[in-house]
Formats: sequence, C-alpha cells, structure tokens
Amino acid sequence: MRLGVAGLGTVAQGLFMLLSENADRVARQLGRPISIARVASRTPRPHIDTLGAKFSTDLDSLLGDDVDIVVELIGGIEDANHLISKAIELRKPVVTANKAVLSQFGNTYISRARECQVPLGFEASVAGGIPIVAVLKDGLAGNSIDSIAGILNGTCNFVLTQMDMHDSTFESALQEAQDLGFAESDPSFDIDGIDAAQKLSILGSIAFDQPIDLNNIYVEGITNVELDDLHYARELGYRVKHIAIARVFDASVEMRVHPALVSENDLLSLIDGVDNAITVAANGVESLLLKGPGAGSRPTASAVLSDIIEIAKGKSSLPTNNTSTRSASPISDLSCEYYLYIPVADEPGVMATLAEVMGNHLISMEAVIQKSDAVRQTGDYRWVPVVLLTDRVKESVLDATIEDLQGISAVHGDIRRIRVVDFN
Amino acid sequence: MRLGVAGLGTVAQGLFMLLSENADRVARQLGRPISIARVASRTPRPHIDTLGAKFSTDLDSLLGDDVDIVVELIGGIEDANHLISKAIELRKPVVTANKAVLSQFGNTYISRARECQVPLGFEASVAGGIPIVAVLKDGLAGNSIDSIAGILNGTCNFVLTQMDMHDSTFESALQEAQDLGFAESDPSFDIDGIDAAQKLSILGSIAFDQPIDLNNIYVEGITNVELDDLHYARELGYRVKHIAIARVFDASVEMRVHPALVSENDLLSLIDGVDNAITVAANGVESLLLKGPGAGSRPTASAVLSDIIEIAKGKSSLPTNNTSTRSASPISDLSCEYYLYIPVADEPGVMATLAEVMGNHLISMEAVIQKSDAVRQTGDYRWVPVVLLTDRVKESVLDATIEDLQGISAVHGDIRRIRVVDFN
Repeated sequence: MRLGVAGLGTVAQGLFMLLSENADRVARQLGRPISIARVASRTPRPHIDTLGAKFSTDLDSLLGDDVDIVVELIGGIEDANHLISKAIELRKPVVTANKAVLSQFGNTYISRARECQVPLGFEASVAGGIPIVAVLKDGLAGNSIDSIAGILNGTCNFVLTQMDMHDSTFESALQEAQDLGFAESDPSFDIDGIDAAQKLSILGSIAFDQPIDLNNIYVEGITNVELDDLHYARELGYRVKHIAIARVFDASVEMRVHPALVSENDLLSLIDGVDNAITVAANGVESLLLKGPGAGSRPTASAVLSDIIEIAKGKSSLPTNNTSTRSASPISDLSCEYYLYIPVADEPGVMATLAEVMGNHLISMEAVIQKSDAVRQTGDYRWVPVVLLTDRVKESVLDATIEDLQGISAVHGDIRRIRVVDFN
Repeated sequence: MRLGVAGLGTVAQGLFMLLSENADRVARQLGRPISIARVASRTPRPHIDTLGAKFSTDLDSLLGDDVDIVVELIGGIEDANHLISKAIELRKPVVTANKAVLSQFGNTYISRARECQVPLGFEASVAGGIPIVAVLKDGLAGNSIDSIAGILNGTCNFVLTQMDMHDSTFESALQEAQDLGFAESDPSFDIDGIDAAQKLSILGSIAFDQPIDLNNIYVEGITNVELDDLHYARELGYRVKHIAIARVFDASVEMRVHPALVSENDLLSLIDGVDNAITVAANGVESLLLKGPGAGSRPTASAVLSDIIEIAKGKSSLPTNNTSTRSASPISDLSCEYYLYIPVADEPGVMATLAEVMGNHLISMEAVIQKSDAVRQTGDYRWVPVVLLTDRVKESVLDATIEDLQGISAVHGDIRRIRVVDFN
C-alpha cells in the first residue's frame, strides 16, 4: 500500500512519525506494510525524514501508478482542490485533513467519489484525533441522531479558558495562544468562528445527511466576550464556551456556532485548553461524549492514518450522498434561554424600567444580578452591569426586546447577549 | 439481511425498537432493509413486537438458511456458547453482547472465526452504547496504545456516586441501586468487580493483542470502601471510583480492577451514576476520553446494531488473533501512590510510631490527615483515623509496611488501602 503525501507540514510530519513508530502494528493489521512512495510540496524540506519517499515540488507527481492512496495535507483551497479533484477522477482513493476545501467543495467530491466508486476519507478534518466521523458514520450507524454539540475550535477554547482561569483579558489570552503556537498570527479564522463552522458543516453532513453548506450555519466568534461575562456566568452556575451545535427537527435543521453558557454540570463546560469535545444525542445511544486533542501533529496524523488503514483494508465505504431536504432554520427562529449583560446608569429606578420592558415582551427572568458594589466608571460616566438570565424565548422576540432596552435612556453602551445551551 | 435473534430480554427489545424506528436510515445506508427472520427464546413473550419474526424455543432454529446473521442476546454461558460455536462452524456471522461467554471462550471464537473466515461482532459486550471496540480497533488503528483506564461497571459507579453525593452507607446505596433496577438481586457479580474484569479482558485483547484471560487480571470490588474514605479522598483532591486499568510495558501487561483515588482534575472522577467512561492513552492521539451509558436497552442495542450494519455492509474485518506473548505483571509488582486509612488509639505518640514504620520501609508521605475532632468510638474503644497519602511505592513494599503497621499495638482494626490512579 503506497501513499502519495502532499505537504510537509506538522500533520505530514506526524504521519511519518506514526508510520515509522507503529510500522509493525500497522503491517500486522493489514498483512502488508504501508510505505510512502512519494511526497510533494511547494518547498523542499530535506531535513524531514519522509521514510524513503521520492520528492517532487509538483503535486501531480502523486497521481501516477506508483501511488495507491493520495493523502492531501497541504491545506488551503486551490492546490488542494486541484489535487483532490484529479485524484477522484483518476479513481485514486483520497484522504484529506482539509476542512476548508471540504466545506467549499465537499458535496462535489462526495458525489463524484460515489460515481467513480472511490473512497474518500476525511476523519482528520474535524476535531483532530477524536474519531468523531467514524463514530457518527459507523459506531452510531443504527441511531437516528438528534443533535451534536461540541467544542470544535481549540484556539477559542484556549482563549476562553485562559480568561476564565487567570482573569486575563481577551487580548492577552489571545497573545498567549499565539506565543504558544495555538493561534495563527492572523487569528480571525479561529476566533471569528469560521473554523468551527467549517467543521460543523462536515459533521452535519455525516449526522444528518445535510449537504455541506456554510451558508446554513449561523456564526459568531468570541471577540465580544468580556471577562465580566465569564465571572457572571460562573456566578449563575455556568461556564462560557465557544460551542458548535447542529440539531434536527422534523423538517428543519438548526446549525449554529457561537459563545454559549454551558451548565457547570455538563462535562462540556469542563473541557479546558486546546482540547475538543463533542456530545451526541441519538435515539439509540441516548448520549455520548468524546474528548481529545482537537489539533496537533500526532493526533491529526492518527486520524489521517485511521482513514488510510480503513481504505487499505478495503473496509472504507463510499461517502454517503447528502440528500436531506431539510431546510436550515434561521437564527431568528431559535428558542433558548439568554444571558443579557446590560450596562445601566448607577441611579434608582432603572431596574424597574428594565423589568417593564421585559414584561412587555412577555419574557420571564430566571435570575437577576445587580450588585451595588459593581460600579464601573467609563470616563465621567458611572454605570453598573445588570445581568439577566431569561427563560426560554424566541430569538426574534429577544432581538426586539434588546432594541427596546437599548432605547432606555439609562442604558449606556451595548447590551451583550450570550445564548444558553440547555439541551443534551 | 435477515437476523436470527436469540433472546427476548431488554437488549433484544431495544434492538427491535431501533430497527423499527430507524428502519429508513438503516436501509438507506445498506441499500436494503434489515429484517428479523427468527427469534428464539426459552420463554415465549408474545406481548413483545418482534417485527414479524418466526418464533421458536429452540435456539438451533436460528442456524438455518433463512438467517444471515446470528445475534446472541440471551446472556449466560452454556446456551450462548452452544449457539455461538455452532454459528461460527456453519460460517454464519455472529453478533453478541455477552461479555461472560467471551471472557471464557473468546479466544476460541476468535481463532475459529478466523479459520472459518466469518465475522464476529462484540461491540455491545463492553461499555454499552460507547463504541469503544470500534474506536480501539479502527479509530486508533494507526496508534500503539499505551493504556486504557475506565469506569466499566455502572452499578459500582452508581453506588459510589450515591455514597459520595448523599452520604449514604454502602448498604443503603446498594439497596437504592437494586430498587432502581441498576443492580441485580444478587449484586456480587458487579460489586465484586467480576463484570468489570470480564470487560477489561476483552478491551485488553483489542488494544494489546492479549489473549483473553481473566486470570491475568487483579480484581477487587467496592465492598470494602467506607464513607470515610470518600470524605478523606475529597479532602485530598480526589474522588473514589471503581477503575479498570490495562497498560503495557515492553514485555509485560498490567491489568487490574479495583477502587481507586482519581484526581478531581481528571474527567474520570466526574463521571457519575450509571455512566461508563474510558480514557485511552496512545502514541498518536495522545489522550482520548469516551463517556456514555454503560448499559440499558437502547444503548446496548445501538452497539449490537452497529455490528450488524458493519457486517451487512461487508465492512467487518475478521477478529484479530491475540498473539501477544507479553506476560501479566502481578499486582505485587505494581508501583503507585497509595491512600491508607489507619484506625489508631486516641493517645499521644502514635503518629511518631506510624511515621517510623513508614520510614523503615523508605516510604515518603505526600499528605497526612489526623484530626483531633475525628474521634470514633467502637464499643469502649476510642480511636481516630489517620489517613496517609504515600509517594509512589511498590505494592510488595506496601504489603510489608501494612503488615508492620498492623502489628503496632496502638493500631486497632484493619488498615484500608486504596490505590491512586496517577497516570493518563
């Protein structure tokens, strides 16, 4: 079984290491060894041990007869798309860790792979070393899946954990993530939620047969989460996590990525640092949680290698066509509990005014926190935060309510909302 | 794809429900439906909807040409062994949830199944709905696995959770487990650790290619855990859990089942009630945790059905021959930290005597708890518990130390030891 590996980055290096260290175990399972026939990369990096592979800067060198499986680990869109598309047309099995290219072209790959009867593995594209794709596809094959909720972006989780544990500001936590190599120099892709949304689009396709479509996903990053929110959330018995959620109702699917209050009784709230975790609710298993490293050289390579071995064993089934016709439910239709952070003037009577507006919109409150010693000063202006936890309410109703609240003269500054994850 | 199902118990009923509710999803994956051709059980239970299956009280009725896969859900040893053995000889794929029969005859089934080229599925035999067999076998196929540690018995975990949360005694917690149907009327199989050991023997065979052999496993149940131990463990930053551990060194494998102190920073310590959880350490994924229902009708049926679908897809590989020649490491060779609970006379100078004995055996102490207000009275005798947390020490050294401690005149009553789980 001869691999053609595109890329010499961290995941490729992890793959070379695992293939070298675990060569015996892999060969015993397959009855034959796996070798790296070819490696292709824009930039040669001769210090990397590619286990005797031929090297080329030309990706197309991986498409010849001396390669049985094409392993795409270059990342990015254009070159990756070229390689994957060509490999499928040539009926060469493909393994990729590239969520970006999958979230853009995955539907095409899947339908062409089915037509060409060629396996396509993408375990490594979601949640690093956690074998969530296989668990959804095979482990829960006899289930109807109701929902998935998870922490899919390690950078966001690291930043929120640092803020929560060490009272860091968002900016300094992000700086630390960058210093440790957990965030890119341009971190927007992670902290704006795009990365998590791409992963969720892939998970939704496996769990619910949804066509992969980022436009179906409501996306919000963590840049607006303040240290104050983490403190108040704790006081209310929650943690703030960046959560990706997909769940189905009869005719619609709800897919969203945003900061959320997660109950401290929910294990998801306790997943810290760069780890990923995913909970699945389904009509057979009821509830399942998987936790593990969401990125990194070896963990991601572990997922790549599991796909390679499955293909080599001839066990890989063709990807399922995503034929669901469920419509995406817009965020305005969401119904959940909300945390509201309302900066108000430090003067009497404000709470009554807030409560009146909430009452006008028929929103009940589960909890209210207003502390006399929590006075903040912004320039000349003295204000206090009022924190509300609402009962379940429709997002569109909450939008209108926030607009009214924002119009109160004693409310100064933007009201922040964080959705509460209240299922599982 | 026609099933022959042995048994009409809770797991079989869960299977019928899932096959009925998820028929469309299953048929879409396979391109054809799954039907129940036959059901066999000692006792007819006509009120159970078996989806149109023919019924017989004769298990051999499942071995005819109208059955494609034999699904053994009767439990017990003798009849199950008869059915599984015959099915394999007839080259009929077998799916079983029966850890007891596997832990006794599994090696024979595996080698005969390989010789007869017939698939054998046993996902449901370990940890209910958690797809741990598939994760170890396929998801981590490219890894060398270093260790597995888990909560594999829901009854033990429920009892310990009840004691910990509600200050229940062992007896009343067990009674509650029985009232709720989480424990058998004869609970010894669970609380003595046999059930967990059977499951561990199966996991060890998948993770480490170890032949299945209960004799390789050190087994201790939870009957000696006292409420006091849970309190002191908490004070030291731990919870007491019933843990099953398997890990390999170069030439030996360590397999053990016993109560253990688990750090409160370890997610395993937070798994409560009847849930199961398993952590895996491996050289690719680094660390993975799975949590879910360890028993129950639907979760266990979910695992059974995943095996059936894999076989129906033709994706099931033959079971791996367990050819490891690693020797089992005896418990006396274990090296870990220990919690010791020592009942001593309420008089001066005792601590110095204890410390001297520990020193004689070169054991350092990480923590000592002795409280002046913790005086207990047993009959006329006033005593206080001294709780020690040792540094890492060899079990054989600790055995000798406990013998010496037990000989001190001020030590009255049995010293209890609980091992600390200090890896992952």
